[in-house]
Amino acid sequence: MSLLDYFRSSKKNSASIAKERLQILVAHERRNRNCPSYLPELQQELLAVIRKYINVNDDAISVNFEQDGDQETLEVNILLPDAK
Amino acid sequence: MSLLDYFRSSKKNSASIAKERLQILVAHERRNRNCPSYLPELQQELLAVIRKYINVNDDAISVNFEQDGDQETLEVNILLPDAK
Repeated sequence: MSLLDYFRSSKKNSASIAKERLQILVAHERRNRNCPSYLPELQQELLAVIRKYINVNDDAISVNFEQDGDQETLEVNILLPDAK
Repeated sequence: MSLLDYFRSSKKNSASIAKERLQILVAHERRNRNCPSYLPELQQELLAVIRKYINVNDDAISVNFEQDGDQETLEVNILLPDAK
């Protein structure tokens, strides 16, 4: 199953159908764990880019960062304001 | 299964273990399809941000954009250069 299939299969969730939303996932497989991670900084810049397109409050944004071995994952979920 | 679980379960694929890589997924559930999509523009800005952190050639980046009803998905896969 590709990640695109995953998005497709989950798009009809009852909880997600009510609101427009934007989800961003960044997965980094690192070979060299001695280098500092740039995902936390990247997260700030990604949010800055998003804010150029949509006007969202901080409380509409949830961010989750996980590290598991050589895998780092940044998940950003944004509940969008109702379309005008 | 959450998306984070998906990333975790797929991290040991034989094809993915050889190279360091970065994967970005943007999923947009749209309520109002009359508005133009901003994902193609967002894609350009996301890549510009990524390039501030890592030096990658264009041929190391593959981008896939799909639209399926009210679901738009942007997938960016980046093969990272070997760590110094």
